[in-house]
Amino acid sequence: MSAQVGIIMGSQSDLPIMAEAAKVLEELGVSYELTIVSAHRTPARMVEYAESAKQRGLRCIIAGAGGAAHLPGMVASLTTLPVIGVPVKSSNSIDGWDSILSILQMPAGIPVATVALNGGRNAGILAASIVGAFDEQVAENLASFKQDLKSKVEDSAEELEKKGWKAVLSL
Amino acid sequence: MSAQVGIIMGSQSDLPIMAEAAKVLEELGVSYELTIVSAHRTPARMVEYAESAKQRGLRCIIAGAGGAAHLPGMVASLTTLPVIGVPVKSSNSIDGWDSILSILQMPAGIPVATVALNGGRNAGILAASIVGAFDEQVAENLASFKQDLKSKVEDSAEELEKKGWKAVLSL
Amino acid sequence: MSAQVGIIMGSQSDLPIMAEAAKVLEELGVSYELTIVSAHRTPARMVEYAESAKQRGLRCIIAGAGGAAHLPGMVASLTTLPVIGVPVKSSNSIDGWDSILSILQMPAGIPVATVALNGGRNAGILAASIVGAFDEQVAENLASFKQDLKSKVEDSAEELEKKGWKAVLSL
Amino acid sequence: MSAQVGIIMGSQSDLPIMAEAAKVLEELGVSYELTIVSAHRTPARMVEYAESAKQRGLRCIIAGAGGAAHLPGMVASLTTLPVIGVPVKSSNSIDGWDSILSILQMPAGIPVATVALNGGRNAGILAASIVGAFDEQVAENLASFKQDLKSKVEDSAEELEKKGWKAVLSL
Amino acid sequence: MSAQVGIIMGSQSDLPIMAEAAKVLEELGVSYELTIVSAHRTPARMVEYAESAKQRGLRCIIAGAGGAAHLPGMVASLTTLPVIGVPVKSSNSIDGWDSILSILQMPAGIPVATVALNGGRNAGILAASIVGAFDEQVAENLASFKQDLKSKVEDSAEELEKKGWKAVLSL
Amino acid sequence: MSAQVGIIMGSQSDLPIMAEAAKVLEELGVSYELTIVSAHRTPARMVEYAESAKQRGLRCIIAGAGGAAHLPGMVASLTTLPVIGVPVKSSNSIDGWDSILSILQMPAGIPVATVALNGGRNAGILAASIVGAFDEQVAENLASFKQDLKSKVEDSAEELEKKGWKAVLSL
Amino acid sequence: MSAQVGIIMGSQSDLPIMAEAAKVLEELGVSYELTIVSAHRTPARMVEYAESAKQRGLRCIIAGAGGAAHLPGMVASLTTLPVIGVPVKSSNSIDGWDSILSILQMPAGIPVATVALNGGRNAGILAASIVGAFDEQVAENLASFKQDLKSKVEDSAEELEKKGWKAVLSL
Amino acid sequence: MSAQVGIIMGSQSDLPIMAEAAKVLEELGVSYELTIVSAHRTPARMVEYAESAKQRGLRCIIAGAGGAAHLPGMVASLTTLPVIGVPVKSSNSIDGWDSILSILQMPAGIPVATVALNGGRNAGILAASIVGAFDEQVAENLASFKQDLKSKVEDSAEELEKKGWKAVLSL
Repeated sequence: MSAQVGIIMGSQSDLPIMAEAAKVLEELGVSYELTIVSAHRTPARMVEYAESAKQRGLRCIIAGAGGAAHLPGMVASLTTLPVIGVPVKSSNSIDGWDSILSILQMPAGIPVATVALNGGRNAGILAASIVGAFDEQVAENLASFKQDLKSKVEDSAEELEKKGWKAVLSL
Repeated sequence: MSAQVGIIMGSQSDLPIMAEAAKVLEELGVSYELTIVSAHRTPARMVEYAESAKQRGLRCIIAGAGGAAHLPGMVASLTTLPVIGVPVKSSNSIDGWDSILSILQMPAGIPVATVALNGGRNAGILAASIVGAFDEQVAENLASFKQDLKSKVEDSAEELEKKGWKAVLSL
Repeated sequence: MSAQVGIIMGSQSDLPIMAEAAKVLEELGVSYELTIVSAHRTPARMVEYAESAKQRGLRCIIAGAGGAAHLPGMVASLTTLPVIGVPVKSSNSIDGWDSILSILQMPAGIPVATVALNGGRNAGILAASIVGAFDEQVAENLASFKQDLKSKVEDSAEELEKKGWKAVLSL
Repeated sequence: MSAQVGIIMGSQSDLPIMAEAAKVLEELGVSYELTIVSAHRTPARMVEYAESAKQRGLRCIIAGAGGAAHLPGMVASLTTLPVIGVPVKSSNSIDGWDSILSILQMPAGIPVATVALNGGRNAGILAASIVGAFDEQVAENLASFKQDLKSKVEDSAEELEKKGWKAVLSL
Repeated sequence: MSAQVGIIMGSQSDLPIMAEAAKVLEELGVSYELTIVSAHRTPARMVEYAESAKQRGLRCIIAGAGGAAHLPGMVASLTTLPVIGVPVKSSNSIDGWDSILSILQMPAGIPVATVALNGGRNAGILAASIVGAFDEQVAENLASFKQDLKSKVEDSAEELEKKGWKAVLSL
Repeated sequence: MSAQVGIIMGSQSDLPIMAEAAKVLEELGVSYELTIVSAHRTPARMVEYAESAKQRGLRCIIAGAGGAAHLPGMVASLTTLPVIGVPVKSSNSIDGWDSILSILQMPAGIPVATVALNGGRNAGILAASIVGAFDEQVAENLASFKQDLKSKVEDSAEELEKKGWKAVLSL
Repeated sequence: MSAQVGIIMGSQSDLPIMAEAAKVLEELGVSYELTIVSAHRTPARMVEYAESAKQRGLRCIIAGAGGAAHLPGMVASLTTLPVIGVPVKSSNSIDGWDSILSILQMPAGIPVATVALNGGRNAGILAASIVGAFDEQVAENLASFKQDLKSKVEDSAEELEKKGWKAVLSL
Repeated sequence: MSAQVGIIMGSQSDLPIMAEAAKVLEELGVSYELTIVSAHRTPARMVEYAESAKQRGLRCIIAGAGGAAHLPGMVASLTTLPVIGVPVKSSNSIDGWDSILSILQMPAGIPVATVALNGGRNAGILAASIVGAFDEQVAENLASFKQDLKSKVEDSAEELEKKGWKAVLSL
């Protein structure tokens, strides 16, 4: 199956965060491709990647970057596909505010679907929900994924109520 | 054609912002429905709206709210559809930071696709790009929409270069 | 004695902060219950918890959560009891601003009594002061609690004045 | 009936915000008193007010102030009653951040139940919910108050759905 | 004389700010060109503008944009010329923080010389100082410009001291 | 009597704020001088002013400036007198944060006594309290000044309690 | 010699910061006293300390506190002496913003001379400059203190220029 | 060759950041000098350095400082050369906001070319681009520098695509 979701990032240092998107897409049965594309260091590569994305069969692009993060917005300007932006809290970032605002505050006409700071995993789930809006199998996978989240909370609640917080904390 | 996109907002005071989403969806040929659903004042209505959204044929939900904006995130917890959140800068908001952070910073597992503050128009375009990823007609509409944006910039650039900034500013 | 205060949190990772509420309620002689309820992962459980709280005899609910923290506000929308919100500074939080603003900035009609970031202990004391407004024994416990705070400051002041800051710092 | 809730503010310029608390307490059938007490300009008056509050029959105190707002926290240090703090966005405030943080971030031991910026109305409702936790009549008043909030949303939703957003916006 | 400085902006709405750069360059005897180039709406035009800038004889580029402002950084990635970025406080900007951080916080390798929010005039002076570092006539113009700034302060100080503040304020 | 307090400001546009310092110094019986000194436009004048301040008999200097406000800190580096800094919220300031932080966050060794944003009046009172620490007449003036503040609060409280808030608000 | 400067802090945990003030006052030949006074836990002790400060011979008070820091402002309301406030970045502080704003943003009438976050040392120097404005010996001590600061910079500059940055960095 | 770029910093503790500028200037074949100049501790040295810079042959000055960082702006007020400011995140800085705003927000008339927080390396590249606008050899060096940045991204992209993210992450 050709990739449904493209995951790109501005630098290999973003990989620990962006790999979370890949991981959850595997759990949810959605195919993906993953590579490095830098808006500032490889602008031509970025143009080529974004302009060919739709005809290569992608349904959505996840783009992560830190600091003055221009990759998600620039890619969104070059494709009609939905682009999900992941603000990455990089080493010299100002607590992540720079990445968040450079991705979120896009001008009218060119939206980026922004997720939480370092939200690689949520970007993957959001991409799956986009695919799942048109693909019943993925929608079902998402439904059981949500069911699992719920069960885990219920289990930890049950354990906490049974053992009491003093026992749990001293674990 | 039944609605492909659901637009909801926490209060009628959000309508001027959220109507921008409806307006651009009409321009882009995407059907929608629009109503008021409050997370805090009509929680049962919110649960019902979100849980029935997928079987009613919606492909995506746009939810806008101001202040401590819980509507987008709560709806996202109740459906597998992609949810687009619009932070609204309401009267007692702290410059919009409260709405942005309550929508953007969702915990792992429950993403919301957040757009810019007061970004109703961008939310509509993002919803269309989600539909357009699977519907060629909408994708083409988006492509000409982008072409229009480009032409408008080129026209205003040409006018500015021809007339000079002094003439344009004194208009 | 059935519980007078309900302590809930969005995730077990909030327990170290929220257990501070339990601890101080014990010191102040107020009965409590404590469990995990997630707004986003167990919305039905949350509705049930909040709607039954009053008839189960609770006088107030303490709810803690991090990031886009919707639990305190959603619970407040589902009960007439006072709800105390504890913003928790979780790992991917933006210095806690997200939790604070999503709990504090509730729209008119649905207040949450917000305490300081990571203020589990203060949430417990506030709950006790609510109970103590109608229960003389608890009010007296609070009065001696305050007396203790005062004595500890006076003791450390006395020690500091007697030994001098150089001796105290080199301890 | 003697006052159950004391409403105080640092300056008469806070009255438009703090009167909202009085207004909603009247709607909810809770008795109150209202006056001006300044932490910085009348410290002795503040001490006297706070220390006599409980024996005068108050169940809770609502204190509002702007800028470096010390009134709520200082009052909380002088009584065992629950104190609700209202951050007021005064003229030279820095967008309200100063009032919020000086009220919210109280040290362990002395909580203030902080509500939203300019949240006078919510402070009143919170005070009523504290009284209502021990007074069935007030609890019932709160329940119908919530029912009213819900009906108003449903009515405006119905009107919006019937007339359409274009008609509503052009009103 | 061909243009030494290129002034570009993302939208015609930035013109009132960016025209300040043009105005001061005229005062300082530096030639310039001015047009509209949008990173998001005319990406190809941006690439062409930036890549041809040096061979067209420009010595520096001034780029202004608001919100998630990608124009200055993207242009900097496409030329070896110094790029001066002007954060513009546009209508839906969050007090200008978004523009500032998206321009200032560029990753290592691709600097943008950022000036103050709405600092069109300062961008022009900075461009002149770059030209003036290699052109004695412009350096002299800058020196008398600074002398003028100084004289104006001295004149207003003298007037204030002579007339007294009460007279000056009541003017 | 020669001036005890020097009031300086970076630009005549700061005068409405800084005149408040002069006004209150007159009320408190402290002599002053007032003029314009710009750190950036008249650096030599600033050096001369600061270095001669002590021998001219000044006891303290009040310096106000907006934006990247360097005047108070630079003056403090050039004198042993206490320097009071007034952050002024000028037109292109970012809500005053720039002025506050450039004045407040001085490195170890060179303190500036910073007052609130636009706090010209408080700067004057602080200067008077410095003089008053060594001059009984000024100390007495300050004591009655404080007494006046107290009386005004008590009067407005009395009026509010007598008339009721509804009458006062409808005034 | 009786103490000229009073140093107080809200909690013994502030001692490492506040001892810096004591240390530099010793270097500068200014006598001081140092103790713990908590606005919230020992309000009566605070009133007594502040009201007796002037007659005990103090010329100025340095007050440090963290979080919602009310000590400096409350003390300033109770004395005519100048009060220097030190915002302390305590463990649950929000990066120190809460302490800074609760100390700096005092309402008109009650100034606090605020120094940088954790600026204990600068508070001591500022207190010395207040004393030195009326005491030639202290003024001379301050002048040589400033001379020392200058010499240290000149020495490290000379060393850096002689050895080169590569040698200095590899030390 | 005499120095084309002057690198100065407020304190030796800024050296690790500022040495990055020196390092990259060497890579790019631009001569420089480097020393320590403190605005607050050696104001006379600063005036002398800035006023003689142009006649000593410098083309641009890079100035770095932390906290209330006045060095870049004060130097800019004393020379017609372009001044590049590097905000340094020093130990008691408030996440770097103080340094950024005191350097960036210069008043009209006196620009500073501000780079990212701790952006020593980018300051060096920007200085080289200023020199390179008039010196073909440096422009060519910059062009190959950019080519290198691009190649490194392409190489890491190729490696990531070939090995897969799981292999790369487990390295």
